[in-house]
Amino acid sequence: MSRQGTRGVDLRKVNGELFSLTYGALVAQLLKDYEDDEEVNKQLEKMGYNIGVRLIEDFLARSNVGRCNDFRETADVISKLAFKMYLGIQPVVSNWSAAGDEFSLLIENNPLTDFVELPPGHSQLNFSNILCGVLKAALEMVQMEVDVRFVQDTLKGDNITEIRLKFVKRLEDAVPVGED
Amino acid sequence: MSRQGTRGVDLRKVNGELFSLTYGALVAQLLKDYEDDEEVNKQLEKMGYNIGVRLIEDFLARSNVGRCNDFRETADVISKLAFKMYLGIQPVVSNWSAAGDEFSLLIENNPLTDFVELPPGHSQLNFSNILCGVLKAALEMVQMEVDVRFVQDTLKGDNITEIRLKFVKRLEDAVPVGED
Repeated sequence: MSRQGTRGVDLRKVNGELFSLTYGALVAQLLKDYEDDEEVNKQLEKMGYNIGVRLIEDFLARSNVGRCNDFRETADVISKLAFKMYLGIQPVVSNWSAAGDEFSLLIENNPLTDFVELPPGHSQLNFSNILCGVLKAALEMVQMEVDVRFVQDTLKGDNITEIRLKFVKRLEDAVPVGED
Repeated sequence: MSRQGTRGVDLRKVNGELFSLTYGALVAQLLKDYEDDEEVNKQLEKMGYNIGVRLIEDFLARSNVGRCNDFRETADVISKLAFKMYLGIQPVVSNWSAAGDEFSLLIENNPLTDFVELPPGHSQLNFSNILCGVLKAALEMVQMEVDVRFVQDTLKGDNITEIRLKFVKRLEDAVPVGED
């Protein structure tokens, strides 16, 4: 495996199909456990949160990115660096609110949903909801409280998958990750 | 994302850390659901089996590999092509039985176990047991019945992770995948 990481860190890659099938097994297990779509969404977000807390350190170490000056810069880093690095895709940043405190990530080929078709009767399931948790936690760890939610999903018949991020507030009460 | 697949197929890659953390969430969920290690092992193997059934088609399409002439060739394809392609590692093929019907895959850096420490009281858990299911199913789909099991695991304090494969019999009653 070639080493491509910055700062000599090995950027290990695994195959997207294997990832997608493994993630699918996780969602299927949760559907079996909880039955209710909203509860599964919550569990997925919680799992994503735990992952985001771990992943942000890895991301800061690899990307060598500094503190973002505004939410637009944050959006760019998420799309061009984070999604690219972890999922191999680069969502389009779009639909900014007039106040500049909300934007959407538009995803054309979501690697989590290769092979996936929602079973009937699960119209409330946000299959890839783990991503919301990851984003929420990762941003919280760099002192930004953000609301993250799915607003469109190709799995539900929408033309595109859209994740909406809304800036809530800057958190000031702790030392940001990577700046201690 | 660069395209490196044979036959023009996109070999999408995702980050190993994300994969490892997602797989960890799956195992943690199963431990919560089933409590008993042996039952979790079984569930992981079952999930792996379902994944292997899907993955073999993908593998045959991408690798363009033909039918193996013997079990030694099978071992080589598993290690040098399949593991390399899906997990980015190349296990050492070793410990052949005298009859040539059993061998081990020795894995030094198992991508499924980055970040992982077994919680106390789970000495029977084969954390990466999903791999046994994947291998069993994938080989079954090309007409080989094989027993697959973990015999060593660095997570349990062993020096290396070792998966043992034993050839059982050739299955003759169906058209092999990719040869219809």
